[in-house]
Amino acid sequence: MSTVDDPIARLVHHLSRLPGIGGKTATRLAHHLIRDPELSGALSEALTAAASDLVQCSLCGNVGTADPCTLCTDPKRDDALICVVERAQDLNAIQRSGGFDGRFHILGGALSPLDGIGPNELRVRELIARLQDGVVQEVILATNPTVEGDTTAMYLARLLKPAGITVTRIARGVSVGAELEYTDSSTISRALEERRAI
Amino acid sequence: MSTVDDPIARLVHHLSRLPGIGGKTATRLAHHLIRDPELSGALSEALTAAASDLVQCSLCGNVGTADPCTLCTDPKRDDALICVVERAQDLNAIQRSGGFDGRFHILGGALSPLDGIGPNELRVRELIARLQDGVVQEVILATNPTVEGDTTAMYLARLLKPAGITVTRIARGVSVGAELEYTDSSTISRALEERRAI
Repeated sequence: MSTVDDPIARLVHHLSRLPGIGGKTATRLAHHLIRDPELSGALSEALTAAASDLVQCSLCGNVGTADPCTLCTDPKRDDALICVVERAQDLNAIQRSGGFDGRFHILGGALSPLDGIGPNELRVRELIARLQDGVVQEVILATNPTVEGDTTAMYLARLLKPAGITVTRIARGVSVGAELEYTDSSTISRALEERRAI
Repeated sequence: MSTVDDPIARLVHHLSRLPGIGGKTATRLAHHLIRDPELSGALSEALTAAASDLVQCSLCGNVGTADPCTLCTDPKRDDALICVVERAQDLNAIQRSGGFDGRFHILGGALSPLDGIGPNELRVRELIARLQDGVVQEVILATNPTVEGDTTAMYLARLLKPAGITVTRIARGVSVGAELEYTDSSTISRALEERRAI
């Protein structure tokens, strides 16, 4: 039962390679999947379909069923505005908010020298290429409000500003609906710093 | 991006059907899988292999590559002793402990009338069939020390004792290496009740 020739052990092994899934969770999921052949089949089919049907958009870097993707070809979106995010999940979160109707650019991560991630590991060159024709008027830096995300935003701002493009950063502050009592101090001090006249 | 025709949405959907995996975790896992085709392929293959290569052992009820399974046919194991557990994971835990060299019997769960699980939903009939030839001298009830597990053990004890078979229950007490300070009261009182002369 413990060799990798064993189908259960192999399933546990590959499940435990997923982020946040440890050995115990992988074992529990494997046993659930073994008892549910319909789910096993559906998941296997979905994995195969995702691998064969998905392509990366050569413009924004998002993964979808077409290149260029539906967001990059949508004629109702504003070509003058590009929102730069770290990952596809961030793009989806902004899409869900309904607060943005320009184009997107996915970097594929954030600068992190300790992890060996410099500008060449991110889609920075592709971003600069998209700014060459002068259509884009503003780049919104929507990297995460973390040390890595802030560093990346700072780096991109310094890189793009000399080209005469307006570079902005999403606002930091207290979450809508949050209570100050339970908000961390750095968020509160940032919200105070970035206070606006009403 | 939100229809079930979309490969990403379909992958997220099926991942979120797994126990303990909510929508956010499923999304995170799906995006990780999309970026790692090797893992996607390996997982899909492992799921297919598990579905096609695994069979349930008609004796003990465990899932493996042969029927009867390797534990049921191992000539070094004691035929006179059967350890009854709820699930395959419990069997694996007992195997890891190295403290048992008899046969196993997996019930497939525990009695839970509120969930509609009665004796007919468990492999009770199969257990009784294995006791008919008089080879088995002792049945060890290793169902979990929960309300359902205890009820199941009580039910099986009442069912099997009249047949003249020794029926035992695994001991309850404080965990090896545990500190009394952090042990819950019911475990401590059970450990006191079941104290033994040394």
